Formats: sequence, structure tokens, C-alpha cells
Amino acid sequence: MQIDYLTSTDTLGLIAGSLTTIAFIPQVIKTWRSKSAEDVSIVMFILFITGVLLWCIYGWEIHAKPVMIANIITFILASTILGLKLYFEDPSKENL
Amino acid sequence: MQIDYLTSTDTLGLIAGSLTTIAFIPQVIKTWRSKSAEDVSIVMFILFITGVLLWCIYGWEIHAKPVMIANIITFILASTILGLKLYFEDPSKENL
Repeated sequence: MQIDYLTSTDTLGLIAGSLTTIAFIPQVIKTWRSKSAEDVSIVMFILFITGVLLWCIYGWEIHAKPVMIANIITFILASTILGLKLYFEDPSKENL
Repeated sequence: MQIDYLTSTDTLGLIAGSLTTIAFIPQVIKTWRSKSAEDVSIVMFILFITGVLLWCIYGWEIHAKPVMIANIITFILASTILGLKLYFEDPSKENL
């Protein structure tokens, strides 16, 4: 197995990816605590999760590890938020 | 000026970028209509916007146009959501 060392560009990508990934953690905690994600758009999360999956494939194709890794983790976190939203959903309210 | 034609990988990246970018539009509309973004995490958006800025620089460095373009537009939309949240904020409520 080949070990690739990280370039400074890779490091920048990893920091960027860590931020856009970690960003979803406070949303998971907030949704879990408040048991409400009424103001969170369901359409946003469905589009976002689909896009994140495609970013994974794109990252694979251009051999950009930070793009792949960040998007796999973002996929898991964003799916968790969507799952919590659906779980806590009040079916009587209109949603976008 | 040099005109670069898009490869299929670029196209995949552009579709991925369009989805993760367009995703923020329903959230902008929802927040604007409901005049509330109480359930949207402010920490999420601050981390996310910072990360998106770094993705722009990363995209520039690896010459990945889809990464750059998508993140510039995402930056604008995510900043709009953060701005609306702060604007509609009820200062008496605890926030994460």
C-alpha cells in the first residue's frame, strides 16, 4: 500500500472539509436537544445529501482525498439531521 | 483568454456543486417566509461559511473550477441565511 504525504494544498482542503463537516455537529445537537427542526428546510437537506454523494464520486475521480473524506462524513451528519427532523416532525405543519 | 472545455468529471462536479448550492435556496425561502430560523444552528452557519471560504481557495489551488464556483455561490446563500437568522432572532432565547 502506498502512503501519500499531504501537501499544503491537501492540508488546506482538509481544514476546509473539517469546518464544513464539523459545522453539522451543532445542528445535530441543537435538533436533538430542542426535539424540533421545524425551521430546518427538508428540501435543503434532500438536495444537499444528494449533492454530497456526488461530491464523493467527484473527489474519487480527481483523486482529491479531502473532498472524498469530508463529504463522506458530511453525508453521515446531514443524513442524521434529516432523520431527526423527520422523527420529530409535526405532520400537521406545512413544510418546505 | 483560454477557453477550457468541461470534462465529464468537471460536469459531475458541477452537478454536485449545483445540488449542494441550490440546497440553500429552500432554506432562504423558508426562513424568509416563516420569519424564523430559531431551529437553525448559528454555530453551524459560522463554521460552514468559514469552511466554504477555504474550499474556494482550495478549489483555486487545485484548479478545480466546480469547487470554486459552487463554493462562491454557497458562500452567498449561507451568508444570507445567517443574516436572516440574526435579523429575525429573538434575543431572549438561548442559541447554539
